[in-house]
Amino acid sequence: MATGRLYGIGVGPGDPELLTLKALRLLRAASVVAYPAPETGDSFARAIVAAYLDPGQREIAIRFQMRPGPVPAAVYDEAAATIAAALDDGDDVACLCQGDPLFYGSFAGLLIRLAPRYPVEIVPGVSSLTACAAAAGIALVQRDESLTVIPASLPEDELARRLAASDTAAVIKLGWNFAKLRRVAERLGWLDGAVYVERASLPQQRIAPLADIDPAGVPYFAMALLRRS
Amino acid sequence: MATGRLYGIGVGPGDPELLTLKALRLLRAASVVAYPAPETGDSFARAIVAAYLDPGQREIAIRFQMRPGPVPAAVYDEAAATIAAALDDGDDVACLCQGDPLFYGSFAGLLIRLAPRYPVEIVPGVSSLTACAAAAGIALVQRDESLTVIPASLPEDELARRLAASDTAAVIKLGWNFAKLRRVAERLGWLDGAVYVERASLPQQRIAPLADIDPAGVPYFAMALLRRS
Repeated sequence: MATGRLYGIGVGPGDPELLTLKALRLLRAASVVAYPAPETGDSFARAIVAAYLDPGQREIAIRFQMRPGPVPAAVYDEAAATIAAALDDGDDVACLCQGDPLFYGSFAGLLIRLAPRYPVEIVPGVSSLTACAAAAGIALVQRDESLTVIPASLPEDELARRLAASDTAAVIKLGWNFAKLRRVAERLGWLDGAVYVERASLPQQRIAPLADIDPAGVPYFAMALLRRS
Repeated sequence: MATGRLYGIGVGPGDPELLTLKALRLLRAASVVAYPAPETGDSFARAIVAAYLDPGQREIAIRFQMRPGPVPAAVYDEAAATIAAALDDGDDVACLCQGDPLFYGSFAGLLIRLAPRYPVEIVPGVSSLTACAAAAGIALVQRDESLTVIPASLPEDELARRLAASDTAAVIKLGWNFAKLRRVAERLGWLDGAVYVERASLPQQRIAPLADIDPAGVPYFAMALLRRS
Protein backbone atom coordinates (compact mmCIF):
# COMPACT_ATOMS: atom_id res chain seq x y z
CA MET A 1 0.00 0.00 0.00
CA ALA A 2 1.22 3.52 -0.79
CA THR A 3 1.95 5.70 2.21
CA GLY A 4 0.02 8.89 2.80
CA ARG A 5 1.37 12.37 2.12
CA LEU A 6 2.39 14.85 4.78
CA TYR A 7 1.30 18.45 4.26
CA GLY A 8 2.84 21.28 6.26
CA ILE A 9 0.11 23.89 6.04
CA GLY A 10 0.50 27.53 6.95
CA VAL A 11 -2.82 28.71 8.39
CA GLY A 12 -1.86 32.38 8.63
CA PRO A 13 -1.62 34.81 11.53
CA GLY A 14 -5.05 34.33 13.12
CA ASP A 15 -7.94 35.53 10.95
CA PRO A 16 -9.49 32.33 9.48
CA GLU A 17 -10.06 34.27 6.24
CA LEU A 18 -6.30 34.61 5.81
CA LEU A 19 -6.07 30.91 5.01
CA THR A 20 -5.14 30.27 1.37
CA LEU A 21 -7.45 28.42 -0.99
CA LYS A 22 -4.85 25.66 -1.23
CA ALA A 23 -4.55 25.31 2.54
CA LEU A 24 -8.32 25.00 2.83
CA ARG A 25 -8.56 22.37 0.07
CA LEU A 26 -5.78 20.20 1.49
CA LEU A 27 -6.98 20.60 5.06
CA ARG A 28 -10.47 19.43 4.11
CA ALA A 29 -9.15 16.48 2.11
CA ALA A 30 -6.81 15.12 4.79
CA SER A 31 -8.05 12.26 6.92
CA VAL A 32 -5.70 13.21 9.77
CA VAL A 33 -5.04 16.72 11.11
CA ALA A 34 -2.07 17.39 13.41
CA TYR A 35 -1.22 20.61 15.26
CA PRO A 36 0.96 22.01 18.03
CA ALA A 37 -0.82 22.61 21.33
CA PRO A 38 0.05 23.63 24.87
CA GLU A 39 0.30 20.99 27.58
CA THR A 40 -3.29 21.67 28.53
CA GLY A 41 -5.85 23.71 26.66
CA ASP A 42 -6.53 24.69 23.07
CA SER A 43 -4.23 24.88 20.09
CA PHE A 44 -4.08 28.31 18.43
CA ALA A 45 -3.38 26.75 15.02
CA ARG A 46 -6.42 24.49 15.39
CA ALA A 47 -8.60 27.38 16.58
CA ILE A 48 -7.83 29.32 13.38
CA VAL A 49 -9.27 26.56 11.20
CA ALA A 50 -11.85 25.15 13.63
CA ALA A 51 -14.76 26.12 11.37
CA TYR A 52 -13.28 24.15 8.49
CA LEU A 53 -12.67 20.87 10.34
CA ASP A 54 -14.89 17.83 9.99
CA PRO A 55 -15.78 15.58 12.94
CA GLY A 56 -14.72 12.62 10.79
CA GLN A 57 -11.11 13.78 10.73
CA ARG A 58 -8.75 12.21 13.23
CA GLU A 59 -6.82 14.80 15.22
CA ILE A 60 -3.29 14.56 16.62
CA ALA A 61 -2.40 17.24 19.17
CA ILE A 62 1.37 17.66 19.49
CA ARG A 63 1.51 18.88 23.07
CA PHE A 64 4.51 20.59 24.59
CA GLN A 65 5.27 23.23 27.17
CA MET A 66 5.01 26.58 25.37
CA ARG A 67 8.02 28.34 26.82
CA PRO A 68 11.12 30.06 25.48
CA GLY A 69 13.88 27.86 24.16
CA PRO A 70 13.92 24.90 21.83
CA VAL A 71 11.20 22.27 21.88
CA PRO A 72 12.73 19.07 23.34
CA ALA A 73 13.79 16.54 20.70
CA ALA A 74 11.69 13.87 22.43
CA VAL A 75 8.52 15.87 21.62
CA TYR A 76 9.36 15.84 17.92
CA ASP A 77 10.43 12.19 18.02
CA GLU A 78 7.13 11.12 19.54
CA ALA A 79 5.02 13.34 17.23
CA ALA A 80 6.94 12.12 14.18
CA ALA A 81 6.34 8.50 15.21
CA THR A 82 2.59 9.09 15.64
CA ILE A 83 2.35 10.88 12.28
CA ALA A 84 4.50 8.22 10.59
CA ALA A 85 2.09 5.52 11.78
CA ALA A 86 -0.81 7.39 10.13
CA LEU A 87 1.18 7.87 6.92
CA ASP A 88 2.08 4.16 6.93
CA ASP A 89 -1.66 3.40 7.11
CA GLY A 90 -2.07 5.37 3.88
CA ASP A 91 -3.64 8.42 5.52
CA ASP A 92 -2.76 11.94 4.37
CA VAL A 93 -1.79 14.12 7.32
CA ALA A 94 -2.30 17.90 7.35
CA CYS A 95 0.01 19.46 9.90
CA LEU A 96 -1.27 22.92 10.83
CA CYS A 97 1.24 25.69 11.40
CA GLN A 98 0.40 29.20 12.63
CA GLY A 99 1.61 31.73 10.12
CA ASP A 100 3.99 29.95 7.78
CA PRO A 101 5.43 26.46 8.37
CA LEU A 102 9.08 27.41 7.80
CA PHE A 103 9.20 30.91 9.29
CA TYR A 104 10.06 30.25 12.95
CA GLY A 105 7.68 27.29 12.90
CA SER A 106 7.92 24.11 14.92
CA PHE A 107 7.16 22.22 11.68
CA ALA A 108 10.89 22.23 10.85
CA GLY A 109 11.40 19.62 13.57
CA LEU A 110 8.91 17.27 11.91
CA LEU A 111 10.22 17.99 8.43
CA ILE A 112 13.75 16.78 9.15
CA ARG A 113 12.42 13.61 10.74
CA LEU A 114 9.78 12.71 8.13
CA ALA A 115 10.92 14.16 4.78
CA PRO A 116 13.53 11.42 4.23
CA ARG A 117 10.85 8.73 4.42
CA TYR A 118 7.55 10.22 3.17
CA PRO A 119 6.31 12.55 0.43
CA VAL A 120 5.99 16.02 1.94
CA GLU A 121 4.43 19.15 0.52
CA ILE A 122 4.61 22.54 2.20
CA VAL A 123 1.93 25.15 1.70
CA PRO A 124 3.27 28.61 2.53
CA GLY A 125 1.05 30.86 4.61
CA VAL A 126 0.67 34.53 5.43
CA SER A 127 3.35 35.17 8.05
CA SER A 128 3.05 37.42 11.08
CA LEU A 129 5.61 39.68 9.39
CA THR A 130 3.35 40.81 6.57
CA ALA A 131 0.22 40.59 8.72
CA CYS A 132 1.68 43.10 11.20
CA ALA A 133 2.73 45.49 8.44
CA ALA A 134 -0.76 45.26 6.91
CA ALA A 135 -2.39 45.88 10.28
CA ALA A 136 -0.22 48.94 10.91
CA GLY A 137 -0.47 50.20 7.31
CA ILE A 138 3.31 50.56 7.15
CA ALA A 139 5.49 49.70 4.16
CA LEU A 140 7.69 47.01 5.67
CA VAL A 141 10.48 47.41 3.18
CA GLN A 142 10.91 49.10 -0.22
CA ARG A 143 13.28 49.27 -3.15
CA ASP A 144 16.92 48.60 -2.13
CA GLU A 145 16.29 48.45 1.61
CA SER A 146 17.18 45.38 3.63
CA LEU A 147 14.91 43.94 6.28
CA THR A 148 16.08 42.09 9.36
CA VAL A 149 13.85 39.84 11.42
CA ILE A 150 15.24 39.58 14.92
CA PRO A 151 13.94 37.56 17.90
CA ALA A 152 13.75 39.73 21.01
CA SER A 153 14.97 36.73 22.98
CA LEU A 154 18.58 37.48 21.98
CA PRO A 155 20.93 38.94 24.64
CA GLU A 156 20.64 42.73 24.88
CA ASP A 157 24.00 43.52 23.25
CA GLU A 158 23.36 41.12 20.40
CA LEU A 159 19.90 42.60 19.85
CA ALA A 160 21.42 46.10 19.76
CA ARG A 161 24.17 45.02 17.36
CA ARG A 162 21.71 43.46 14.94
CA LEU A 163 19.28 46.37 15.09
CA ALA A 164 22.07 48.88 14.49
CA ALA A 165 23.10 46.97 11.35
CA SER A 166 19.56 47.11 9.86
CA ASP A 167 17.68 49.56 7.63
CA THR A 168 14.37 48.25 8.87
CA ALA A 169 13.73 45.59 11.47
CA ALA A 170 10.88 43.46 12.66
CA VAL A 171 11.52 42.33 16.22
CA ILE A 172 9.46 39.27 17.08
CA LYS A 173 8.70 37.13 20.14
CA LEU A 174 8.36 40.15 22.40
CA GLY A 175 6.58 38.97 25.57
CA TRP A 176 8.81 39.42 28.58
CA ASN A 177 11.63 40.60 26.30
CA PHE A 178 9.76 43.84 25.65
CA ALA A 179 11.51 46.04 28.24
CA LYS A 180 14.88 44.96 26.83
CA LEU A 181 13.84 45.91 23.29
CA ARG A 182 12.55 49.25 24.49
CA ARG A 183 15.86 50.05 26.17
CA VAL A 184 17.76 49.11 23.02
CA ALA A 185 15.48 51.15 20.75
CA GLU A 186 15.89 54.17 23.01
CA ARG A 187 19.67 53.77 23.18
CA LEU A 188 19.91 53.62 19.37
CA GLY A 189 17.53 56.54 18.87
CA TRP A 190 15.04 54.26 17.07
CA LEU A 191 12.13 54.68 19.50
CA ASP A 192 10.50 57.55 17.61
CA GLY A 193 8.31 56.11 14.91
CA ALA A 194 8.64 52.52 16.17
CA VAL A 195 5.32 50.70 16.02
CA TYR A 196 4.00 47.91 18.21
CA VAL A 197 1.54 45.35 16.82
CA GLU A 198 -0.19 42.74 18.94
CA ARG A 199 -2.36 39.86 17.66
CA ALA A 200 -2.43 41.10 14.07
CA SER A 201 -5.58 40.18 12.11
CA LEU A 202 -7.52 39.02 15.19
CA PRO A 203 -10.45 40.95 16.67
CA GLN A 204 -8.24 41.92 19.65
CA GLN A 205 -5.59 43.38 17.32
CA ARG A 206 -3.78 46.33 18.86
CA ILE A 207 -1.48 48.86 17.18
CA ALA A 208 0.30 51.61 19.10
CA PRO A 209 3.53 53.58 19.25
CA LEU A 210 6.17 51.38 20.86
CA ALA A 211 6.93 54.17 23.32
CA ASP A 212 3.38 53.99 24.74
CA ILE A 213 3.36 50.28 25.62
CA ASP A 214 3.29 48.97 29.18
CA PRO A 215 5.83 46.11 29.26
CA ALA A 216 3.73 44.20 31.77
CA GLY A 217 0.98 43.40 29.31
CA VAL A 218 2.95 42.35 26.23
CA PRO A 219 2.16 38.86 24.89
CA TYR A 220 4.66 36.59 23.16
CA PHE A 221 2.84 37.03 19.84
CA ALA A 222 3.59 40.70 19.48
CA MET A 223 5.99 42.39 17.11
CA ALA A 224 7.77 45.71 16.83
CA LEU A 225 8.47 47.40 13.50
CA LEU A 226 11.41 49.77 13.64
CA ARG A 227 13.43 51.70 11.14
CA ARG A 228 16.58 53.78 11.10
CA SER A 229 15.60 57.37 11.85
CA MET B 1 -22.18 60.21 -1.23
CA ALA B 2 -19.67 58.12 0.69
CA THR B 3 -16.41 57.42 -1.08
CA GLY B 4 -15.39 53.88 -1.96
CA ARG B 5 -12.78 51.89 -0.05
CA LEU B 6 -9.32 51.09 -1.32
CA TYR B 7 -8.07 47.55 -0.76
CA GLY B 8 -4.39 46.66 -1.17
CA ILE B 9 -4.63 42.96 -1.83
CA GLY B 10 -1.71 40.54 -1.75
CA VAL B 11 -2.34 37.89 -4.40
CA GLY B 12 0.60 35.68 -3.46
CA PRO B 13 3.67 34.49 -5.32
CA GLY B 14 2.05 33.09 -8.47
CA ASP B 15 -0.10 30.01 -7.85
CA PRO B 16 -3.71 31.25 -7.97
CA GLU B 17 -4.52 28.80 -5.16
CA LEU B 18 -2.19 30.75 -2.84
CA LEU B 19 -4.69 33.59 -2.73
CA THR B 20 -6.32 33.96 0.68
CA LEU B 21 -10.05 33.56 1.19
CA LYS B 22 -10.23 37.23 2.17
CA ALA B 23 -8.39 38.38 -0.95
CA LEU B 24 -10.77 36.38 -3.12
CA ARG B 25 -13.87 37.74 -1.39
CA LEU B 26 -12.78 41.38 -1.61
CA LEU B 27 -11.50 41.01 -5.16
CA ARG B 28 -14.84 39.61 -6.31
CA ALA B 29 -16.81 42.33 -4.51
CA ALA B 30 -14.86 45.30 -5.88
CA SER B 31 -16.30 47.16 -8.85
CA VAL B 32 -12.84 48.38 -9.89
CA VAL B 33 -9.65 46.32 -10.05
CA ALA B 34 -6.25 48.03 -10.41
CA TYR B 35 -2.85 46.40 -10.93
CA PRO B 36 0.74 47.16 -11.94
CA ALA B 37 1.63 46.22 -15.51
CA PRO B 38 4.57 46.61 -17.88
CA GLU B 39 4.46 49.32 -20.56
CA THR B 40 3.10 46.79 -23.00
CA GLY B 41 1.82 43.31 -22.32
CA ASP B 42 0.22 41.48 -19.44
CA SER B 43 0.29 42.18 -15.74
CA PHE B 44 1.63 39.32 -13.62
CA ALA B 45 -0.58 40.32 -10.66
CA ARG B 46 -3.66 40.27 -12.92
CA ALA B 47 -2.64 36.93 -14.46
CA ILE B 48 -2.58 35.32 -11.01
CA VAL B 49 -6.25 36.17 -10.39
CA ALA B 50 -7.49 36.14 -14.01
CA ALA B 51 -9.82 33.20 -13.37
CA TYR B 52 -11.54 35.09 -10.54
CA LEU B 53 -12.24 38.35 -12.41
CA ASP B 54 -15.64 39.27 -13.79
CA PRO B 55 -16.07 41.03 -17.15
CA GLY B 56 -18.31 43.55 -15.36
CA GLN B 57 -15.39 44.83 -13.28
CA ARG B 58 -13.63 47.94 -14.51
CA GLU B 59 -9.87 47.49 -14.76
CA ILE B 60 -7.12 50.08 -14.24
CA ALA B 61 -3.69 49.01 -15.46
CA ILE B 62 -0.93 51.03 -13.78
CA ARG B 63 1.68 50.84 -16.51
CA PHE B 64 5.35 51.63 -16.00
CA GLN B 65 8.69 50.51 -17.29
CA MET B 66 9.66 47.43 -15.27
CA ARG B 67 13.33 48.17 -14.68
CA PRO B 68 15.65 48.48 -11.69
CA GLY B 69 15.36 51.63 -9.61
CA PRO B 70 12.42 53.48 -8.15
CA VAL B 71 9.15 53.86 -10.03
CA PRO B 72 8.90 57.55 -11.11
CA ALA B 73 6.69 59.65 -8.83
CA ALA B 74 4.63 60.77 -11.84
CA VAL B 75 3.48 57.16 -12.37
CA TYR B 76 2.16 57.01 -8.82
CA ASP B 77 0.66 60.49 -9.05
CA GLU B 78 -1.30 59.57 -12.16
CA ALA B 79 -2.40 56.17 -10.87
CA ALA B 80 -3.46 57.71 -7.55
CA ALA B 81 -5.53 60.33 -9.39
CA THR B 82 -7.29 57.67 -11.51
CA ILE B 83 -8.01 55.53 -8.46
CA ALA B 84 -9.14 58.59 -6.44
CA ALA B 85 -11.67 59.41 -9.16
CA ALA B 86 -13.14 55.90 -8.87
CA LEU B 87 -13.22 56.15 -5.05
CA ASP B 88 -14.92 59.56 -5.32
CA ASP B 89 -17.59 57.90 -7.47
CA GLY B 90 -18.27 55.55 -4.57
CA ASP B 91 -16.58 52.54 -6.16
CA ASP B 92 -14.48 50.14 -4.10
CA VAL B 93 -11.08 49.60 -5.70
CA ALA B 94 -9.10 46.38 -5.28
CA CYS B 95 -5.44 47.05 -5.99
CA LEU B 96 -3.69 43.76 -6.78
CA CYS B 97 -0.16 43.25 -5.49
CA GLN B 98 2.05 40.26 -6.29
CA GLY B 99 3.11 38.57 -3.10
CA ASP B 100 2.34 40.95 -0.28
CA PRO B 101 1.40 44.64 -0.70
CA LEU B 102 3.95 46.01 1.78
CA PHE B 103 6.89 43.65 1.23
CA TYR B 104 8.86 45.37 -1.57
CA GLY B 105 5.58 46.19 -3.27
CA SER B 106 4.77 49.19 -5.44
CA PHE B 107 1.56 49.57 -3.42
CA ALA B 108 3.46 51.69 -0.88
CA GLY B 109 3.53 54.53 -3.42
CA LEU B 110 -0.27 54.51 -3.68
CA LEU B 111 -0.73 54.10 0.06
CA ILE B 112 1.08 57.31 0.98
CA ARG B 113 -0.90 59.25 -1.63
CA LEU B 114 -4.37 57.85 -0.90
CA ALA B 115 -4.45 56.81 2.77
CA PRO B 116 -4.76 60.40 4.03
CA ARG B 117 -7.97 60.87 2.03
CA TYR B 118 -9.73 57.50 1.73
CA PRO B 119 -10.44 54.44 3.87
CA VAL B 120 -7.77 51.85 3.08
CA GLU B 121 -7.56 48.21 4.09
CA ILE B 122 -4.56 46.02 3.41
CA VAL B 123 -4.89 42.27 2.97
CA PRO B 124 -1.54 40.58 3.58
CA GLY B 125 -0.51 37.88 1.13
CA VAL B 126 1.88 34.97 0.93
CA SER B 127 5.24 36.59 0.16
CA SER B 128 7.93 35.23 -2.15
CA LEU B 129 10.02 34.72 0.99
CA THR B 130 7.92 31.95 2.47
CA ALA B 131 6.91 30.62 -0.96
CA CYS B 132 10.58 30.04 -1.85
CA ALA B 133 11.30 28.32 1.46
CA ALA B 134 8.25 26.08 0.97
CA ALA B 135 9.30 25.23 -2.59
CA ALA B 136 12.81 24.34 -1.45
CA GLY B 137 11.63 22.52 1.68
CA ILE B 138 14.09 24.50 3.78
CA ALA B 139 13.44 25.94 7.23
CA LEU B 140 13.94 29.63 6.55
CA VAL B 141 14.66 30.56 10.13
CA GLN B 142 14.25 28.87 13.53
CA ARG B 143 14.38 29.62 17.23
CA ASP B 144 16.74 32.53 18.05
CA GLU B 145 18.11 32.98 14.54
CA SER B 146 17.81 36.27 12.70
CA LEU B 147 16.85 36.49 9.05
CA THR B 148 17.98 39.21 6.69
CA VAL B 149 16.25 39.96 3.41
CA ILE B 150 18.71 41.67 1.08
CA PRO B 151 18.16 43.00 -2.45
CA ALA B 152 20.90 41.79 -4.79
CA SER B 153 20.82 45.22 -6.42
CA LEU B 154 23.02 46.64 -3.62
CA PRO B 155 26.67 47.43 -4.42
CA GLU B 156 28.91 44.38 -4.06
CA ASP B 157 30.67 45.50 -0.87
CA GLU B 158 27.40 46.42 0.78
CA LEU B 159 25.87 43.09 -0.20
CA ALA B 160 28.90 41.29 1.28
CA ARG B 161 28.75 43.34 4.48
CA ARG B 162 25.07 42.60 5.01
CA LEU B 163 25.41 38.92 4.22
CA ALA B 164 28.37 38.56 6.58
CA ALA B 165 26.28 40.08 9.40
CA SER B 166 23.44 37.54 8.93
CA ASP B 167 22.65 34.11 10.33
CA THR B 168 20.42 33.33 7.40
CA ALA B 169 19.69 35.47 4.38
CA ALA B 170 17.22 35.61 1.54
CA VAL B 171 18.71 37.54 -1.35
CA ILE B 172 16.01 38.80 -3.70
CA LYS B 173 15.79 40.57 -7.06
CA LEU B 174 18.52 38.43 -8.59
CA GLY B 175 18.27 38.85 -12.39
CA TRP B 176 21.44 40.43 -13.72
CA ASN B 177 22.76 40.81 -10.16
CA PHE B 178 23.24 37.06 -9.93
CA ALA B 179 26.94 36.90 -10.85
CA LYS B 180 27.67 39.51 -8.17
CA LEU B 181 25.86 37.49 -5.51
CA ARG B 182 27.69 34.34 -6.56
CA ARG B 183 31.05 36.05 -6.19
CA VAL B 184 30.08 37.36 -2.74
CA ALA B 185 28.78 33.96 -1.57
CA GLU B 186 32.00 32.30 -2.71
CA ARG B 187 34.17 34.92 -1.07
CA LEU B 188 32.33 34.49 2.26
CA GLY B 189 32.38 30.70 2.05
CA TRP B 190 28.57 30.60 1.91
CA LEU B 191 28.22 28.99 -1.53
CA ASP B 192 28.01 25.42 -0.22
CA GLY B 193 24.44 24.71 0.73
CA ALA B 194 23.09 27.91 -0.85
CA VAL B 195 19.86 27.27 -2.72
CA TYR B 196 18.43 29.02 -5.75
CA VAL B 197 14.66 29.26 -6.26
CA GLU B 198 13.04 30.62 -9.41
CA ARG B 199 9.32 31.27 -9.97
CA ALA B 200 8.25 29.62 -6.71
CA SER B 201 4.77 28.04 -6.77
CA LEU B 202 4.39 28.35 -10.58
CA PRO B 203 4.49 25.34 -12.92
CA GLN B 204 7.94 26.50 -14.18
CA GLN B 205 9.29 26.56 -10.62
CA ARG B 206 12.97 25.64 -10.46
CA ILE B 207 15.10 24.79 -7.41
CA ALA B 208 18.82 24.09 -7.64
CA PRO B 209 22.09 24.55 -5.79
CA LEU B 210 23.21 28.15 -6.26
CA ALA B 211 26.60 26.92 -7.45
CA ASP B 212 24.99 25.16 -10.44
CA ILE B 213 23.16 28.19 -11.88
CA ASP B 214 24.10 29.82 -15.18
CA PRO B 215 23.97 33.59 -14.51
CA ALA B 216 22.77 34.27 -18.07
CA GLY B 217 19.34 32.74 -17.50
CA VAL B 218 18.40 34.18 -14.10
CA PRO B 219 15.12 36.15 -14.00
CA TYR B 220 14.44 39.10 -11.71
CA PHE B 221 11.92 37.03 -9.74
CA ALA B 222 14.43 34.59 -8.38
CA MET B 223 15.77 34.30 -4.84
CA ALA B 224 18.74 32.75 -3.10
CA LEU B 225 18.54 31.26 0.39
CA LEU B 226 21.88 31.23 2.17
CA ARG B 227 23.07 30.52 5.66
CA ARG B 228 26.24 30.80 7.65
CA SER B 229 28.18 27.56 7.18
